[in-house]
Amino acid sequence: MITRHFDEEMELLKQKILRMGAMVEDQISSSIKAMIERDSELAKKVIENDHLVNALDVEIDEDALRLLALHQPAAGDLRFITTAMKISTELERMSDLAENISERVTELNEELQIKPYIDIPKMAERSQKMVAESLDAFVRRDSGLGRKVCADDDFVDDLNKQIFRELLSFMIEDPRFISTAIRISFISKYLERIADHATNIAELAVYLVEGKIIRHTDKIW
Amino acid sequence: MITRHFDEEMELLKQKILRMGAMVEDQISSSIKAMIERDSELAKKVIENDHLVNALDVEIDEDALRLLALHQPAAGDLRFITTAMKISTELERMSDLAENISERVTELNEELQIKPYIDIPKMAERSQKMVAESLDAFVRRDSGLGRKVCADDDFVDDLNKQIFRELLSFMIEDPRFISTAIRISFISKYLERIADHATNIAELAVYLVEGKIIRHTDKIW
Repeated sequence: MITRHFDEEMELLKQKILRMGAMVEDQISSSIKAMIERDSELAKKVIENDHLVNALDVEIDEDALRLLALHQPAAGDLRFITTAMKISTELERMSDLAENISERVTELNEELQIKPYIDIPKMAERSQKMVAESLDAFVRRDSGLGRKVCADDDFVDDLNKQIFRELLSFMIEDPRFISTAIRISFISKYLERIADHATNIAELAVYLVEGKIIRHTDKIW
Repeated sequence: MITRHFDEEMELLKQKILRMGAMVEDQISSSIKAMIERDSELAKKVIENDHLVNALDVEIDEDALRLLALHQPAAGDLRFITTAMKISTELERMSDLAENISERVTELNEELQIKPYIDIPKMAERSQKMVAESLDAFVRRDSGLGRKVCADDDFVDDLNKQIFRELLSFMIEDPRFISTAIRISFISKYLERIADHATNIAELAVYLVEGKIIRHTDKIW
């Protein structure tokens, strides 16, 4: 009886992590949609919805603690539960970054657009995919998928560097664009940090399955 | 017998967290010393020492899991142990940021210095103090001190904004300074993120003691 109950609770924990992940994916795509379509109302919605992600983080933490206290799980499950607690922290940070993107977008929408946004949506799309795949790697204990996500991080890092170089030449060419260009570079940086958090989750998934540390170093350019 | 052993292991866990904190504080102050004294050798040492902090993070995690598995601690201790696991992640991220500072410092030391560094060392000093105090708040279960650290974060945020505005006018005045100024703004931003991580630790300490969430939103400017 207790055993079935424990399995059910573990399943619920997984479902909550996936639900939180879906919310974060939505926060990311909405913040970038608000940028492309210059929709500050949508940006505002992302900022307002951050507390829902925070609430789920707290809920997952409390669920995990209750599981640990009541069921005294064996080593493998124990590690899964503490990993879930760490993952919900990573997701909560991503939601904060989507909020930061939306803040910069609100400012950008008040200014003249210096160029069409092409690489930023590409970066956002890849980062979002990394979030989904890192969580899949965790719940399905698929360390191969986890390693793929870690490799994808290079793509996002490279795009960030490329965007930064491009914005730098804009700034040097015409100093009137400096503050607008800096806001865009911040958004690019936030996306790169979102991808870093997804990589952290993927590394946790690999560690959970293989017991091997593949610590990601947080390179910038 | 098991009870004393458990208390000893808990004490060891605390000591390791404090040791890791001291290492991170040293990483922060060395990276800024490398900036002020234009000492790229010291910056290199910070980059090289990051793996020592990572190793301690893994060790703390494994210690915590062993404590959970072998002793099935009661609710209060359980929460303390899972909080310690989260805190070591925060400290590991800070060490990554000290590494990032050192990378930018190495680049800056190849360029002409545009102005003496005054606010950056001030920011570093306060961030370092926040790290020490947030860990004190945790190990001594002092939620008053935890709340003080959260309030201190505003000081660092304000300094970051002030530094950014100052650098922006440098850039607009003379576009030749753009890339140097951006490197300095990155360092300022890394310090602000270090202070954010200290704030996260302080919030965890407050939550541990009071059971109240005082979630920090990651504001930028």
